[in-house]
Amino acid sequence: MATGKIPHATAKRLPIYYRYLNILADEGVERISSRDFAERINIDATTIRRDFAYFGQLGTRGFGYNVQSLLRFFRKALYQDHLTHVALIGVGNLGRALLKYNFQQTNNIRISAAFDTDPAITGTIQNGVPVYSMTDLEQQIKDQQIKIAILATPVSAAQEITDALVEAGVEGLMNFSATRVNVPDTVDVKYIDLANELQSLIFFVANREERTN
Amino acid sequence: MATGKIPHATAKRLPIYYRYLNILADEGVERISSRDFAERINIDATTIRRDFAYFGQLGTRGFGYNVQSLLRFFRKALYQDHLTHVALIGVGNLGRALLKYNFQQTNNIRISAAFDTDPAITGTIQNGVPVYSMTDLEQQIKDQQIKIAILATPVSAAQEITDALVEAGVEGLMNFSATRVNVPDTVDVKYIDLANELQSLIFFVANREERTN
Repeated sequence: MATGKIPHATAKRLPIYYRYLNILADEGVERISSRDFAERINIDATTIRRDFAYFGQLGTRGFGYNVQSLLRFFRKALYQDHLTHVALIGVGNLGRALLKYNFQQTNNIRISAAFDTDPAITGTIQNGVPVYSMTDLEQQIKDQQIKIAILATPVSAAQEITDALVEAGVEGLMNFSATRVNVPDTVDVKYIDLANELQSLIFFVANREERTN
Repeated sequence: MATGKIPHATAKRLPIYYRYLNILADEGVERISSRDFAERINIDATTIRRDFAYFGQLGTRGFGYNVQSLLRFFRKALYQDHLTHVALIGVGNLGRALLKYNFQQTNNIRISAAFDTDPAITGTIQNGVPVYSMTDLEQQIKDQQIKIAILATPVSAAQEITDALVEAGVEGLMNFSATRVNVPDTVDVKYIDLANELQSLIFFVANREERTN
């Protein structure tokens, strides 16, 4: 599987494909054409065919794709065949919502360790997840061999915590704190800045009005 | 301003530029080169120069960009000169976190109406925001002339609510519910699926390991 050549845009669609293939399988669907699949998931058929081709999954003309075969393929490609343990840093408003978010329902992902500075919650278990103090960060991340972390801390703490996470072996960071962080080339950072996302949506809507008026 | 031609990737960076220009202005910085700006925000200088050129903002060689002038420009381009009112549909775990999220701190955005089915919170004010019952949805969205909505409902309710929002005049939707929704061409939908985002991060990290081993 030449996954090194897969574009980011394609990789981002894989979980969507995977989720809907599961729904199709539950419904007992055995084969599906790219066109029917396109209608179900609101992604155009050409994009789907091109994406699947990256993985050597070529549908048969007139017969479409085999759902079970695609599902087996994506399960492996997306590492759904084993549970991925994730750390959460910062159990504030957003952190709490993330702790309650059931990643395991659709994906084989579990927040298995949380970290915070607040002595009122450190040393307790929240939604089944132990909340450690920040002084335990590096040791716990190392002991639990966690490679993926979610950063939901204030801006001021983001870089220092990122450095500690990288030092402890984290290779992928989902950053909700509204700031850019510096990491070595060996670490992937995914930024989710809710205010920015909302702002660019507003920009597009306003801009669309200008275009159509 | 030929904003119709601005690529999505550029538009997504505008709020980041805007935020950091504000920080620079607060620090009293008058001019900045694309290279120095690049270092501050972790976006490469070539990208910054190309993005700014879309808006006709050309730095002077050796002198860089005028911070105040850029700031005035972005403030207008990002509609920061007036408050944008946003509706929140679904006051569950994520919805509650969003209500507490201070969009106004960095952006001129305010969640000014929330909607839920739970009689325990409808008719109350949560974090300064009135929570209306779902039966008031269309009327309130119309009365308050809200054009942007955040969808944080279960999957099962997403399409029905989307239809009602569009009917009431919403033109931009930030969709946190883990499903695709059908909208007319006149409506922009921004999907934020936290499980999918985490999943694709895991995919990239795992794939990176394969490449480097």
